[in-house]
Amino acid sequence: MFEPDEVLLLGPGPSPVSPRVRRAQAQPLLGHLDSEFVPLLDRVQSGLRRLFGTTNRLTLPLAGTGSSGMEAVVANLVEPGDRVVVGVNGVFGMRFADSVRRAGGEAVVVEAPFGCALDPDALRTAIAGGPTRLLAVVHAETSTGVLTDLRPVAAMARDAGALFAVDCVTSIGGVPLACDELGVDAAFCGTQKCLSVPPGLAPVTFSERALERVAARRHPVPFYFDTRLLTGYFGRERSYHYTAPVSMIYALAASLDEIDEEGHEARFARHREAAAALRCGLGPLGLEPLVAEEHAAPMLTTVRYPDGIDDVAFRRYLRRHHLIEVGGGLGPLAGSVFRVGLMGHGARLPNVLRALAAFGDALRACGAAPDVAAALAAVHAG
Amino acid sequence: MFEPDEVLLLGPGPSPVSPRVRRAQAQPLLGHLDSEFVPLLDRVQSGLRRLFGTTNRLTLPLAGTGSSGMEAVVANLVEPGDRVVVGVNGVFGMRFADSVRRAGGEAVVVEAPFGCALDPDALRTAIAGGPTRLLAVVHAETSTGVLTDLRPVAAMARDAGALFAVDCVTSIGGVPLACDELGVDAAFCGTQKCLSVPPGLAPVTFSERALERVAARRHPVPFYFDTRLLTGYFGRERSYHYTAPVSMIYALAASLDEIDEEGHEARFARHREAAAALRCGLGPLGLEPLVAEEHAAPMLTTVRYPDGIDDVAFRRYLRRHHLIEVGGGLGPLAGSVFRVGLMGHGARLPNVLRALAAFGDALRACGAAPDVAAALAAVHAG
Repeated sequence: MFEPDEVLLLGPGPSPVSPRVRRAQAQPLLGHLDSEFVPLLDRVQSGLRRLFGTTNRLTLPLAGTGSSGMEAVVANLVEPGDRVVVGVNGVFGMRFADSVRRAGGEAVVVEAPFGCALDPDALRTAIAGGPTRLLAVVHAETSTGVLTDLRPVAAMARDAGALFAVDCVTSIGGVPLACDELGVDAAFCGTQKCLSVPPGLAPVTFSERALERVAARRHPVPFYFDTRLLTGYFGRERSYHYTAPVSMIYALAASLDEIDEEGHEARFARHREAAAALRCGLGPLGLEPLVAEEHAAPMLTTVRYPDGIDDVAFRRYLRRHHLIEVGGGLGPLAGSVFRVGLMGHGARLPNVLRALAAFGDALRACGAAPDVAAALAAVHAG
Repeated sequence: MFEPDEVLLLGPGPSPVSPRVRRAQAQPLLGHLDSEFVPLLDRVQSGLRRLFGTTNRLTLPLAGTGSSGMEAVVANLVEPGDRVVVGVNGVFGMRFADSVRRAGGEAVVVEAPFGCALDPDALRTAIAGGPTRLLAVVHAETSTGVLTDLRPVAAMARDAGALFAVDCVTSIGGVPLACDELGVDAAFCGTQKCLSVPPGLAPVTFSERALERVAARRHPVPFYFDTRLLTGYFGRERSYHYTAPVSMIYALAASLDEIDEEGHEARFARHREAAAALRCGLGPLGLEPLVAEEHAAPMLTTVRYPDGIDDVAFRRYLRRHHLIEVGGGLGPLAGSVFRVGLMGHGARLPNVLRALAAFGDALRACGAAPDVAAALAAVHAG
């Protein structure tokens, strides 16, 4: 029997899973069309609607990782030749643009440097540059921890008559989402960030306007992602489309129950408080956040290394001696930053204190001279 | 906490999961790039190679249901305009042809009636009808329980210079596979049949010849299924592609360990014996298998109802009073048959006896006059 270490998951996901969610996953398996399972699926779909802030009928946990959610959105909403404006300020924006191109769309990329917010004027100019079918942005960019303010972007999409699609992989469950209020037509997420469920499901939601667009397509959608077929199983009919990942859905159901019991607002506040505490403690350790506070996503803080610290050695030390996982940098940031996720079940002050003490020890082991006592004091003072 | 019934899963999948696999799934979560997790992934890939009968480098558990495996094969190996010959004698062959068409391929369908074997001469004629890029068949058709003899079909593909792709969703782990020996270029399966792991993973394998074809493509592959990107994570580099479904992979690893401990041959024999026992008991109950014995897949037996038995009432009675799940008929067979899976952990004589006794009780409740004692005696005599 494989018996892994109990690692504190403070990377960009997967995040820590509560004992209740772990137990739920191991419950006896039911069939995917079972009379006891179908009501659980209904409950999961309702819970997801509340988190997305939507009443969209087609809101469901797709069988696949968060990236399959992006694929589903692109596969349904982009046709060859479609002009798609994509905000890119990190790796997942780049992936969005790549997916659009693979689907035959024309990706008009509006870039901002990694770690910076998108420029609304640049987005507006790009949208005005031609008939825009879809505007796509990442809400919380997992490669940097920048949170995009969706409201002005949503307004641009609406004014241009474009559909609006949002990557909520890292944001959902950690900050409020209001898809219907803003006019988001398609959103997707993963379960392994602020929902604190193991990776393997991609909750997605599509507005009626998005589904009308799908109905008007000239090119077919791949079978696996076809919203018209998914509607059969995840809608009223409950007809067979594929064999839903039953035990993963048990885990998601348990997590959604926990989220409802905690209350959405309390959960979002917990994420904000944990992130603020972490920020307070970085300075005395000689560390610096990459992202300015006003653009920072609370669930993910990217941290610059001081000169001379070896990324791999630092992270290996944390994993080996402190049983803590943090993430490395992606893309142009590889080697110069590490990423600290305080997500879902993991977004708690005790984890922040444990992490700061461990960062201090690891920095010392890598040759720096951090002031751990001052870091912990700063958290308590902040 | 959702506490489902302990249902004996004797439908077309999901199949019963052993206590060890259930426990494995609930083990503490590790990161998908963790130094302890990566060797487990190596072990899983090796175990899958043994079951597929291949040394293919690119053998991996894709994050998605069995259908995502079909999608991955089609997305990588079919380009617009490609002529693809598809053997269709059930719903999953139809799905294969549908996927090919959605990818822009020309699906040349060679049909046989539901419940019958494919006609090798008809396949040969179809292949000879034009330049064939790919030949695709379903090994064990989950909608009927027909097992296709792959050897002659593989020879046709080889002779025609076509790639050969096989749906092994229901067959893997229950009957021998010899992908390399036969010359299978791409195969996919699910975990929820004879591997006895919850649904949510699609093990796939691609030959070097198949990957050369992918490298020569003129059209891009969707991001999620791109074998070149999957190679990054599932190959030597272990670079990030997507966040692998860690806990599902724990479950698959535990199941592959169980399979190795039991021994492949012993496992296949267990499936044959369970199926033979079930067949012995059907007649005295007034039931009849759909598929002739020489074409029957051992893990799935489709059973015709006697006249006057209501499908939904029969299956609901089994579920409610005996905590047994069997499957309904699909496509043209809906209402006139039910499907009995004796798969993986579930393929055992005690389950056969329990099932036959329960079928007898349910038939009686639905107005028939089955001879249960004779059915059980027939099993013991057989």
